[in-house]
Amino acid sequence: MAFGWIDEQAESRRSAGLVRTLRPRPAESPLLDLASNDYLGLARHPDVTEAAARAARTWGGGATGSRLVTGTTELHTELERELAAFCGFEAALVFSSGYAANLAAVTALAPHGSLIVSDAGNHASLIDGCRLARGATQVVAHADPEAVRKALRTHDGPAVAVSDTVFSVDGDAAPLAALAGVCRERGAGLVVDDAHGLGVLGDGGRGAPYAAGLAGADDVVVTVTLSKSLGSQGGAVLGPARVIGQLVNAARTFIFDTGLAPAAAGAALAALRLLRGEPERAARARAVAGELHTRLTAAGLAAVRPDAAVVSVRAPSPESAVRWAADCRAEGLAVGCFRPPSVPDGISRLRLTARADLSGDQIERAVRVIGDTRP
Amino acid sequence: MAFGWIDEQAESRRSAGLVRTLRPRPAESPLLDLASNDYLGLARHPDVTEAAARAARTWGGGATGSRLVTGTTELHTELERELAAFCGFEAALVFSSGYAANLAAVTALAPHGSLIVSDAGNHASLIDGCRLARGATQVVAHADPEAVRKALRTHDGPAVAVSDTVFSVDGDAAPLAALAGVCRERGAGLVVDDAHGLGVLGDGGRGAPYAAGLAGADDVVVTVTLSKSLGSQGGAVLGPARVIGQLVNAARTFIFDTGLAPAAAGAALAALRLLRGEPERAARARAVAGELHTRLTAAGLAAVRPDAAVVSVRAPSPESAVRWAADCRAEGLAVGCFRPPSVPDGISRLRLTARADLSGDQIERAVRVIGDTRP
Repeated sequence: MAFGWIDEQAESRRSAGLVRTLRPRPAESPLLDLASNDYLGLARHPDVTEAAARAARTWGGGATGSRLVTGTTELHTELERELAAFCGFEAALVFSSGYAANLAAVTALAPHGSLIVSDAGNHASLIDGCRLARGATQVVAHADPEAVRKALRTHDGPAVAVSDTVFSVDGDAAPLAALAGVCRERGAGLVVDDAHGLGVLGDGGRGAPYAAGLAGADDVVVTVTLSKSLGSQGGAVLGPARVIGQLVNAARTFIFDTGLAPAAAGAALAALRLLRGEPERAARARAVAGELHTRLTAAGLAAVRPDAAVVSVRAPSPESAVRWAADCRAEGLAVGCFRPPSVPDGISRLRLTARADLSGDQIERAVRVIGDTRP
Repeated sequence: MAFGWIDEQAESRRSAGLVRTLRPRPAESPLLDLASNDYLGLARHPDVTEAAARAARTWGGGATGSRLVTGTTELHTELERELAAFCGFEAALVFSSGYAANLAAVTALAPHGSLIVSDAGNHASLIDGCRLARGATQVVAHADPEAVRKALRTHDGPAVAVSDTVFSVDGDAAPLAALAGVCRERGAGLVVDDAHGLGVLGDGGRGAPYAAGLAGADDVVVTVTLSKSLGSQGGAVLGPARVIGQLVNAARTFIFDTGLAPAAAGAALAALRLLRGEPERAARARAVAGELHTRLTAAGLAAVRPDAAVVSVRAPSPESAVRWAADCRAEGLAVGCFRPPSVPDGISRLRLTARADLSGDQIERAVRVIGDTRP
């Protein structure tokens, strides 16, 4: 029977206790949220939600077509201009998701005959970009510029190194300046996903590439999401105008996808303007992450020192991680639970996100619940 | 220099007159729109835009996380339930785009050792799904059930046939009942993309699979977009609950993507309810397409008889197609222009979309402009 094989896989998952289920949340959740990626607490800021509402009324419920047909509104262009300027790049191109932006950047910048050097800890969307690209991929050790250098030396012709700036699972940062250095030695491009850096790292939240002095470089391309610090939906690629032109002409997830909904573009633009006007939000997110780490460590928990706003806490096994997260939930605390097969290193952990708008009391409560429920 | 190779490609495009450029549109465009995929004219319906605004206010500017963490709201679940019921399937799963939904369906349903039989005219997102899937792909002749039968016979073990229901470029329909027949002979699954069928074909716009008597079949999986007839953004996969469960557990573009923005979910749900309450909209879109075709043909233009709401008009060359569309635009008419490399068959054409809300006068005007500007 068609799809009969699915039942066997489902049964293996059930017996391993690893079935994933959706838990719909109400509009006003009673849970304390340390699970979302709403790092700056802007998703429900009235400026952001009103901008979404206004954009829907002004421009419609959808973009109505692909970006090259009817799906580019003046609102998209405005967002692209302000995003590029904020992060210090020449141009930007907005996508319906960060996933689509990553697929676009990697596939359009790694043509046939080129080499992609990809960090072993990269996000699924970068990995899928490598798999779709016509170039050949070499996966190298995590956060290891020397490994990137060695890989680049094996190839003549166009090459790019691809990395997250902040790795979403453990919250550690990539050695961006060193990566850019080894890329420049070989004339290779550097493509980095700043999904977890924008709004958190760099002066006023301008992102990890800005912090590393790489903003505006002609050999650096940055992808970001509009769905984390900017509280909306979508993604973008930032870089030299020639690179953005190449994406417009060659990236399939740009050409063949409906444009981002106006409400999402409007919300992201409003959030960007809030961030520009209140640069202390970025520093506050980092401070909350630091405080979470300090307190968790003081409570004897194996928390990884955060480089941005993600704090990872190791769990002894996939099963105990799932149970730990469920126990936190029962105590009113929402935390992320990452475990195989969705972690590249096979390590199970709770994943906490520091929000700029968490109070001291909330941080204390979160740490208490995590400690009390430890496996 | 990094990315230096881009300049050569850009130069080839320029000399061939094939550079793609974005044309941002204002909120109130003076152009008559026969280019968007807003088939039912719902993108700017006040019920739809108000629902988007309300959802943003109630739920926030974004979903704040992946669907398995914090990105599933009760609004997403409501949309999934109503979408599945409307189209006659057991379950549905909503994605941030139709592109992501297609990548998910193909990759999660074509495991290692399986065979994918893919129509040569399929949309880019289905093709990318085939390229990402662990199964092997055989591309077969366009709209040819016998070719699918032959391909399926070469393989033992899990297999799926993959096809658009309405091909986006030429507007022709796939032979769905025959495809389902040859799949059943071999116990293979059928995965079809109804992006251009939902809202246009089938009783009250329930889609092409519904029209073909395949709704609710345990061996049929349907993907749809929320960004065309439903005037919003996003995509969905509809099918048996076991298939949806497999996607939740295994589809990377589901697991690793931020959930659809609440405003988009709200807009799509409102549009779905409008369509359910006003089933004549679907018939009207088909009637407009038929009228466009009749009048274009009477004017001596090479229009392809439409099976849904897309009317394709052949152009003699890529350059003349680009010029033709520009001349229409200068006369106040927006039409799509599809040409290599974004058409699988190498044929350049204007692509017109019939909207249910086009008046007789507007249709007449459109045909006159297209005729007057013909190459």
